[in-house]
Amino acid sequence: MSVENKQHIYPVRLEDDLFDIVQFIRRDAQLTRNELVTLLGLSRSKTTKLINELIDLRLLTEAEVGESSGGRKPNLLELNRNFGYVIGIHMGASGANVCLADFKGKIIEWQRTPINIRNKPEQVMDTVFESVFRLLDAHHINHNQILGIGVGVPAPVEKNTNRIVNPATMLGWHDYSISDYCRTHFAESVVKVDNDVALMALGELREGMGKNHENFLMLKIGTGIGCGIVCKGEVYHGTTGIAGHIGHISVDREGPVCHCGLVGCLEKFAAGPALAEQATRAANAGRSAILSELMEKNGGKLTPEDVGTAAGRGDKVANDIIIESGRVIGDVLATVVSFFNPSLLIVGGGVSNIGPQLLINIHRTILKNSLPLSTQDFSIQKSQMGYHAGMQGSVSLVLDHVLAKV
Amino acid sequence: MSVENKQHIYPVRLEDDLFDIVQFIRRDAQLTRNELVTLLGLSRSKTTKLINELIDLRLLTEAEVGESSGGRKPNLLELNRNFGYVIGIHMGASGANVCLADFKGKIIEWQRTPINIRNKPEQVMDTVFESVFRLLDAHHINHNQILGIGVGVPAPVEKNTNRIVNPATMLGWHDYSISDYCRTHFAESVVKVDNDVALMALGELREGMGKNHENFLMLKIGTGIGCGIVCKGEVYHGTTGIAGHIGHISVDREGPVCHCGLVGCLEKFAAGPALAEQATRAANAGRSAILSELMEKNGGKLTPEDVGTAAGRGDKVANDIIIESGRVIGDVLATVVSFFNPSLLIVGGGVSNIGPQLLINIHRTILKNSLPLSTQDFSIQKSQMGYHAGMQGSVSLVLDHVLAKV
Repeated sequence: MSVENKQHIYPVRLEDDLFDIVQFIRRDAQLTRNELVTLLGLSRSKTTKLINELIDLRLLTEAEVGESSGGRKPNLLELNRNFGYVIGIHMGASGANVCLADFKGKIIEWQRTPINIRNKPEQVMDTVFESVFRLLDAHHINHNQILGIGVGVPAPVEKNTNRIVNPATMLGWHDYSISDYCRTHFAESVVKVDNDVALMALGELREGMGKNHENFLMLKIGTGIGCGIVCKGEVYHGTTGIAGHIGHISVDREGPVCHCGLVGCLEKFAAGPALAEQATRAANAGRSAILSELMEKNGGKLTPEDVGTAAGRGDKVANDIIIESGRVIGDVLATVVSFFNPSLLIVGGGVSNIGPQLLINIHRTILKNSLPLSTQDFSIQKSQMGYHAGMQGSVSLVLDHVLAKV
Repeated sequence: MSVENKQHIYPVRLEDDLFDIVQFIRRDAQLTRNELVTLLGLSRSKTTKLINELIDLRLLTEAEVGESSGGRKPNLLELNRNFGYVIGIHMGASGANVCLADFKGKIIEWQRTPINIRNKPEQVMDTVFESVFRLLDAHHINHNQILGIGVGVPAPVEKNTNRIVNPATMLGWHDYSISDYCRTHFAESVVKVDNDVALMALGELREGMGKNHENFLMLKIGTGIGCGIVCKGEVYHGTTGIAGHIGHISVDREGPVCHCGLVGCLEKFAAGPALAEQATRAANAGRSAILSELMEKNGGKLTPEDVGTAAGRGDKVANDIIIESGRVIGDVLATVVSFFNPSLLIVGGGVSNIGPQLLINIHRTILKNSLPLSTQDFSIQKSQMGYHAGMQGSVSLVLDHVLAKV
C-alpha cells in the first residue's frame, strides 16, 4: 500500500513487512540489506523491493560506509531523520520541559518553561504551547511535519483514553483531555499522554542506564515521590495505570493526614516540600544558624535546594533532614525491592541533587532491610539524564505510535 | 522432521508449524481444521498434511462432534491425553503433594505425603518418590511414558540451573539439584523446578481464579509467607528469582531477629508458627481458657489450626491474634498493591483456612491504606484450588517444556 495520498495524516499506515523493516532499523539504528534479508526471512529480491518502497516513502535513507574491500560498497540503511519531527513535553508541578526531536528520536533543542500545574489546564497548556511554537519557528518547521506529540504529566493517566484520572496534585485536571488540546493545534498528529515517571523510566530504558536491564525502577524525588517500573523490558502501568505511585504509601500510621486523605504518606516525610518545611521549622526554632541565614536571604522562605546548600556548608540539622529522608524512602523501597527484585534503581527528580547522603542512605536502608539474594545483583545509580529522561521518554512513546500496521 | 526414532527422549522436538499447532490446541482445548487454517495462515492442504503428521505422532486426536447439518461432520482436534503423562510435585515444609497428570494437564490422581524439609535432601526426595512410584503402579504407567516432572519448592530457585539457592527454610538444600535426583529415576524426562508460590500463581493463572487477570498476586500464608506474581499474563520471577519473597519484609524495626538475620520480619508476626506461639503464650499466661484446654489436649502444644478452632468457639484472645495477623499482612500488602496495582489478590496456604476474619482484615487494611484508584478494580479472594493450585502449577510448568522447537 502506498501512503502518498495521505502523507500528512498520522500514524502512517504500512503493510506488515514494511512496518517490520522500519522497526528492525529503529531498534538497531543501522542495518545492511543482507542483515534485513536474514531478519525478515524473505527473498533478496522481495526485500530489495520493500526497502526501495520505504526509501521512496522517505522513511529510510542509505548511508554509504567508508570501508570497502573492492566491489560495490555495502550500504547501511537507516531511518531518514528528516522524515518528520515529534514534540516531547514533560510537565512537572512548576515547570514544563518541551523538546523538538527528529524521526530518529534525537532531541534537536529543548526549553524549560515555568508553569503552575494548579492553574486551569487550558491556561497551562497555552503556556506550554508557546514554547512548542517557539521551537518550531526557530527551526522553520511546519505544522504538517509534526508526526506526533508525547506528553508526560504528574498524574495517573488512563491507558485507553489518554485522560488524566483522579490526580492528587493536578486537581482541576480530572478527566481533562490533553489530546484534544494538542489536536486543536496539530489536527493530524498522533498524541500520546502518560504518567511523568513512567516516561522517565521509558527514557532511561531507551537511551539511559536502563538500556541493559530487564527489570528496573526509576525513582523520582521532587514535589512528590513516584516510581516508574520496567518489567521484562517494558514499562509496566498496572491494572488502572497507577502502578508505582509509592508517594502515598504510609510510613507512619500515626502520622499527619496527607492531601490525598491517607495518613502518614511517604511524601509528607521525604519529598521536597517536606524537607523545606522541616528546615523552616528548625530555622524558626533557632536550631540552625545557616538555615536561618538562608531563610532571611530568601525573604522568609526555604526551598529543598536551601537544605542541600546548608548541608553542603556542614549544617548538622540540614544534613540530618536529608539523612532521615533517605532512610524513610529506603524503608519503603526495601519492601518494593523484596517484592519486585529489580536489578537497578535509578534515582532522579530535583530533590535527588540535594546531596550525596540522600542516595547513600536510601541504598544503606535497602541493603539493611533486604535478603542478600534480593540485592546481590542490585545497584542504585543517580540518573545521568536529568530533565532529558522525561523528554526522551515522551519522544520515544510517541515515536512508538507514529507508524502503524495497515 | 519425524520424532519416531527418539520416541522416548523428551522434550519432543517439532518443526515450527507443528509446534505452533499443538500450542494453539493446548491453549484453546479444541479446534476445527478450518480454525487452524486461519490461525496458521497456511493453505488448507498444507495444514491438513501437518495435522495428519501430528495425529501419526499420537500428539493429536480427532473427536467427532455430535451436531451435523448433513454432509461430513466437522471434526474437532484435541490433544491426545494419552500421548504421555507428567508428574507434578509441590513440596511444603511438612508435606509434599504428588500428582499424576495426563498430556492435557488434567490431574488423574494425587497423594499427600508427610515430609520434613529440614531432613537431608536425598532422604526427603526418596520419600516423595515412593509416592510417585505408587501412583505409576496404581495406573500401570511405565517410566518411559513420563514426559516430565515439575517440582515446586519453598525456596528461591535459580532460573537457568533449576538449583535451589540460599533457602531460608531448606538450609541443607543450598545448591542441591532436584533435577539430578529426578533424572536418576527418569533419565529421559524433562525436569523443571520452581518456587512453590510462583507455581501456585501459575496454577491459578491456568486453571483457577487468575484465568482472566493480567496482573495478580497469589499470597500463601503457611509456615512462611510468600507471594507469587503474575505480570502481563505471565509469572514474574525477578532478577535473581526471588521476587515475591515478602515474608522477610520488616514490619517492626524494633522487632525480634528472624532466622534469616533481618529484624522484625513479617513471618515472625503473621505466619503459622507465630500465631501458634502467640496462642501458646496466651494459654501459659492463663489469658484464654479455650486455648489452655486445647493445649492440654495436644500434650502442651498449640497449632495455627487450634487458634482457628478457639476463635471459632468465640475465644477473644484467639480472635485478636488472627485479626492482628491480618492487619500486619494487610499493611505490607497495601504497599505492594500501591506499587504493583494488581486486579486480584488470591489468598491460599494452610493458614488461610484459619477463619474468615483473616481475609477480612487483610482486605480492610489494604483498602484503608491505599489510594482509591489503586483499589477501584481490585478484589481479594480465597483460593478455591487449595493443594491443587501448586500441583497444577507444577504440571503446567513442565507441560510448557515437554515439547520444543527443532
